[in-house]
Amino acid sequence: MWSSLLGFPLAGVASNSNFAHMKKKVGILGATGYTGVELLRKIASHPEMEVVFVTSGKQVGKSLWELFPSLRGVGTNLSFIANEDALQIPVDGVFSCLHHAQAAAEIVPWLENTKSVIVDLSADFRMRDASIYQKYYGSHPRPDLLPGALYGIPEWDFSAPGKYRIIGNPGCYPTSVLLPLRPLLMAGLISHENIIVDSKSGVSGAGKTPTETTHFCEVHENFSAYKPADEHRHLSEINEQLSIATKKSVQVCFTPHLVPMSRGILSTIYCSTTKPIEHGEALNCLKSAYGKSRFVDILEKGLPQTAWVHGTNKCIVGIKAVPSQNRLVIISVIDNLVKGASGQALQNMNLALGLQEDGGLAV
Amino acid sequence: MWSSLLGFPLAGVASNSNFAHMKKKVGILGATGYTGVELLRKIASHPEMEVVFVTSGKQVGKSLWELFPSLRGVGTNLSFIANEDALQIPVDGVFSCLHHAQAAAEIVPWLENTKSVIVDLSADFRMRDASIYQKYYGSHPRPDLLPGALYGIPEWDFSAPGKYRIIGNPGCYPTSVLLPLRPLLMAGLISHENIIVDSKSGVSGAGKTPTETTHFCEVHENFSAYKPADEHRHLSEINEQLSIATKKSVQVCFTPHLVPMSRGILSTIYCSTTKPIEHGEALNCLKSAYGKSRFVDILEKGLPQTAWVHGTNKCIVGIKAVPSQNRLVIISVIDNLVKGASGQALQNMNLALGLQEDGGLAV
Amino acid sequence: MWSSLLGFPLAGVASNSNFAHMKKKVGILGATGYTGVELLRKIASHPEMEVVFVTSGKQVGKSLWELFPSLRGVGTNLSFIANEDALQIPVDGVFSCLHHAQAAAEIVPWLENTKSVIVDLSADFRMRDASIYQKYYGSHPRPDLLPGALYGIPEWDFSAPGKYRIIGNPGCYPTSVLLPLRPLLMAGLISHENIIVDSKSGVSGAGKTPTETTHFCEVHENFSAYKPADEHRHLSEINEQLSIATKKSVQVCFTPHLVPMSRGILSTIYCSTTKPIEHGEALNCLKSAYGKSRFVDILEKGLPQTAWVHGTNKCIVGIKAVPSQNRLVIISVIDNLVKGASGQALQNMNLALGLQEDGGLAV
Amino acid sequence: MWSSLLGFPLAGVASNSNFAHMKKKVGILGATGYTGVELLRKIASHPEMEVVFVTSGKQVGKSLWELFPSLRGVGTNLSFIANEDALQIPVDGVFSCLHHAQAAAEIVPWLENTKSVIVDLSADFRMRDASIYQKYYGSHPRPDLLPGALYGIPEWDFSAPGKYRIIGNPGCYPTSVLLPLRPLLMAGLISHENIIVDSKSGVSGAGKTPTETTHFCEVHENFSAYKPADEHRHLSEINEQLSIATKKSVQVCFTPHLVPMSRGILSTIYCSTTKPIEHGEALNCLKSAYGKSRFVDILEKGLPQTAWVHGTNKCIVGIKAVPSQNRLVIISVIDNLVKGASGQALQNMNLALGLQEDGGLAV
Repeated sequence: MWSSLLGFPLAGVASNSNFAHMKKKVGILGATGYTGVELLRKIASHPEMEVVFVTSGKQVGKSLWELFPSLRGVGTNLSFIANEDALQIPVDGVFSCLHHAQAAAEIVPWLENTKSVIVDLSADFRMRDASIYQKYYGSHPRPDLLPGALYGIPEWDFSAPGKYRIIGNPGCYPTSVLLPLRPLLMAGLISHENIIVDSKSGVSGAGKTPTETTHFCEVHENFSAYKPADEHRHLSEINEQLSIATKKSVQVCFTPHLVPMSRGILSTIYCSTTKPIEHGEALNCLKSAYGKSRFVDILEKGLPQTAWVHGTNKCIVGIKAVPSQNRLVIISVIDNLVKGASGQALQNMNLALGLQEDGGLAV
Repeated sequence: MWSSLLGFPLAGVASNSNFAHMKKKVGILGATGYTGVELLRKIASHPEMEVVFVTSGKQVGKSLWELFPSLRGVGTNLSFIANEDALQIPVDGVFSCLHHAQAAAEIVPWLENTKSVIVDLSADFRMRDASIYQKYYGSHPRPDLLPGALYGIPEWDFSAPGKYRIIGNPGCYPTSVLLPLRPLLMAGLISHENIIVDSKSGVSGAGKTPTETTHFCEVHENFSAYKPADEHRHLSEINEQLSIATKKSVQVCFTPHLVPMSRGILSTIYCSTTKPIEHGEALNCLKSAYGKSRFVDILEKGLPQTAWVHGTNKCIVGIKAVPSQNRLVIISVIDNLVKGASGQALQNMNLALGLQEDGGLAV
Repeated sequence: MWSSLLGFPLAGVASNSNFAHMKKKVGILGATGYTGVELLRKIASHPEMEVVFVTSGKQVGKSLWELFPSLRGVGTNLSFIANEDALQIPVDGVFSCLHHAQAAAEIVPWLENTKSVIVDLSADFRMRDASIYQKYYGSHPRPDLLPGALYGIPEWDFSAPGKYRIIGNPGCYPTSVLLPLRPLLMAGLISHENIIVDSKSGVSGAGKTPTETTHFCEVHENFSAYKPADEHRHLSEINEQLSIATKKSVQVCFTPHLVPMSRGILSTIYCSTTKPIEHGEALNCLKSAYGKSRFVDILEKGLPQTAWVHGTNKCIVGIKAVPSQNRLVIISVIDNLVKGASGQALQNMNLALGLQEDGGLAV
Repeated sequence: MWSSLLGFPLAGVASNSNFAHMKKKVGILGATGYTGVELLRKIASHPEMEVVFVTSGKQVGKSLWELFPSLRGVGTNLSFIANEDALQIPVDGVFSCLHHAQAAAEIVPWLENTKSVIVDLSADFRMRDASIYQKYYGSHPRPDLLPGALYGIPEWDFSAPGKYRIIGNPGCYPTSVLLPLRPLLMAGLISHENIIVDSKSGVSGAGKTPTETTHFCEVHENFSAYKPADEHRHLSEINEQLSIATKKSVQVCFTPHLVPMSRGILSTIYCSTTKPIEHGEALNCLKSAYGKSRFVDILEKGLPQTAWVHGTNKCIVGIKAVPSQNRLVIISVIDNLVKGASGQALQNMNLALGLQEDGGLAV
């Protein structure tokens, strides 16, 4: 029926095609950016999920391989359709890779007319408080929907994604920062004041639109800081989530930097401890929070590097305690496109649809 | 029994662990280099294969994650054992990532004492003629074994890997060059004389040993040629295979270059056509040779880039015919660590063991 | 007088300011691209030349440091003026970094109303034959000016730049190709047929405008070919100059490639020799052609790398003779922004104004 | 006389050769590393200084161009001699690029037998307190010499270099950190407690010896932290210099990171202000400290990037005040090989020998 909307016959990865009838069906709104492509890559190896539509505003009619030849190596060749045509295609879940504000608006018909779970990769469902959203992103088109959305860090409650229609997928920087900070704050090991976060991101975090900032000759053999201290949008999530967790007003000092690489975030987090804290004590706190997590990895010793998580859904955390100075330094790494975006979105979707958490995320 | 040799319990990827009993078992000799790690990465997502030992000359007792933290994100944590201890572990197949000359020597006890299939990633079983081997690599330790080995480009005969005990896995440059050249030569569309191959490779092709040539500051923002025209070892394979195919003495002019990137080979191949050849005629020849191949992809139009095959087992080929000049230019790309090494090795092993060709190679 | 047009007082490099009264004055039309900035960098260290105006279409009123903060380290802070205002400022020479077609049009008032020497970095004055120009660039606005312009490779005749009002500065690829090929062809050592040029360039050759092709994430860890065999514009110069030199119709096969680095060109040139040529014979030919050149450097042995000429006005050439195959392989490297553009332009201007050839080009 | 020790006749840059008789003569001990090569590059364009010897432990007899072909484009071709032979060559100044501990030992005969000024690029003369040295570098071979050496940041007292026989050239990280911190601390605008320095460096800071850490494939597309909080040697200089300046015990928290680029350091420095400080107040403090400096550049607004100082002797500083949080964030950039090493060494030597501060450092 709806497959006639697509320019190419649907085809799963050959070796799994005999299971195709039992796969969950999902679609991707706004699939022409880096997060959309990364979702397609991951789901291509998912034994229990398949993508049945991809939408675009400007590329309707073009095929995936035409726009993204790198998908020739891994995925199937769907053609882009318009958002409104997608609504006719029955799916179990929808990933929205639309821009903020647009996302909240486009999602409404899906909420009203379908039973699909929605994982939104924009900022539209990350905040509980619309006034915080407004400060950083402008007026929210549907603030009434905010209370019904989950801030989707699955490791905080693996059962949560199954209970919401809308999951706001966290920002890349916040994921790397909140994962280690939250348990340490909740355990009272570190002070909620004077938290300094110095984050470094690869260029894909800036998106696919060519700008002066993403021109190869401007980035290569260069390193820069931007939006220092209190300027970056992702502070909204970081501060709100830490304030919710601690029931105190947390104001982090956050400075992001641009690294001449494509993928990866490393956050160096400087905390004041509430008393002299030894390495082992901090380590135990983090291990008891994430010891059973498939994707959060706490190092006994040493510091992680971004290459260790390249292409994976892992967050690896290392720590350095300086008890004599009442200080704890945390190093946290993720792949900004995977655990920082599409991987975590897929992890959320897997849990929401009752699949194994790591479907499509094994590698 | 033998698992007591290993420092860690064996564990497959969690989601597949219930199928572990039916998986084929393989081991890797000399697994501390880039090709060994790449094999481990690929097999980690293989639904029907698992690695049960890894050997090393110098790192016995250390664990994979200790030496290769990037495997934390994807694989299991075996410990390295010695080559001689591995021999006691029953496996269906052995990958050898040992250096040339060492490989041919170490493989002998496996041939004599086990029934394992051996896929060798060194140059030791790539040549049919030991004198050609000697010219480039020195004296061959076991020339008597050469006639019994397969030069393993599976696309030339998918049934062949199942018929040999030893499969010589082709070199990276030769794979990118031979795949497009062989059918065009065999069809008589291009002359066997005056073939010029200008290849460009990422740095991982130079191996993991730190040298001046691989120092970041020497490679980054630099581009260089090396071993021009008739100097590079890989000419041995290229010339021998093309001579076998054409029954003529083929002498290619081959100049490799070093690209400031980690992975990827692009070969630009300049051929004289035997008559004015149109685009469609050359295209049809290649498509009829590889139309049913899972991993060789002939572009109808346009030219491929190395990023399109990054991390995949694909070889993508594009062509440009200039009939007025009796010329055909071919652009061929592979990932040197995948189709150029470990991916093709796994593809060979899959076929040799009767598994699906693309097991572990879906992404 | 005219200095009131400029937002900042003119200031030479401090240590040379006492010689400022004797410096030659030059201006730059269209100074907002990479070639303009490179000219400013080089002239900043020139003991006998100073830049007195920079023009722009869209940035009038802005200062150099505002647009190019990297010039804070090396140069003075002029403000951009419009092309038509520049005409009132007396200068000894004008560099045009305007786009092709626009360059030829804008230069006319300078020819008619001033005595300034003009070095044009576009393609507008590189061809002698307007029909060749038209084939690659469209209709030439002033074909009547072509016969009066010099194709400016100074090493072919150091006295030539002093004899012309207009110097067409050669393209980047052609400079790397023509320097080694011309003397070998003129000496009859190589055949004018079957010349294959495989060139590789850094990304700055694609200009400063952000596009998909220059997006960091598309170029980084990627390598690609483009405009293969007979498609690239620079063939116009290469073929015309070689045909003029040999009085034969030369048709080179030329394939350019994009390297993930900012600067540098390496051309690998494959020639058929007219008879078996030894290394020494080819070397002597090149050394006798360029032995006295400050900027062309013929290697006795070994092959050059692009890093060796990074930021310099050098062209370094290495060769590999294969007499048994009647073949000669040439490797030639330049910095595309220096010897391939702004450095050669400055070298031309120096010679045209009677200054030392290497003023501003020492480093 | 001594020139017979050198394999090649001495030759200045051609255009300055007529001034050669009046140039100051200098030599470089241990010139085979990155700092030695950078010194050679810079001095090649120095109108008043020339290098008359280069020494090496292992490369005696080899020529500069043999080891460093990139110097073909910029410098002259001296041959390496042994340290002990250099002592016979009369020079005005000596740069030592030897390793720490070795440097202090090798310098002694120069102190005793010559009148040469010595600028030492190792850590041997950076500390006033030998016990601090010992903590990080091991036993100091000549602690008696420490009081007679200058910690050479010229901007703190331009007359100082002229008053010392030994100048300890500051470390790369400390230069980027101390330049902005010292005046702010001395003015009492920021607290001497709770200073957090998050620094990022290009790979050349790790030196020229090939190691796993500097292998292209380990660094490229990777970002990592190392020696966090209180572990890095450069803390010795930072803490000692800030303690001297403030007469208080300053203990900075310092975490360095490795950036996938060759050159450049960016330090992000987080300070607590002693009261709410507005942007203008902090800016004025820095401008009054460095307003007349040729090489320290305080930005009125915005943040600097490492590319802005690539190859130059500049330190550019930008600030972000958050008065509501009593916080000041400082971004400071240098080229680690220039202002962070060889450039500052040359600046020190220029001042010590009574030359213009920026000789050889114009570009």
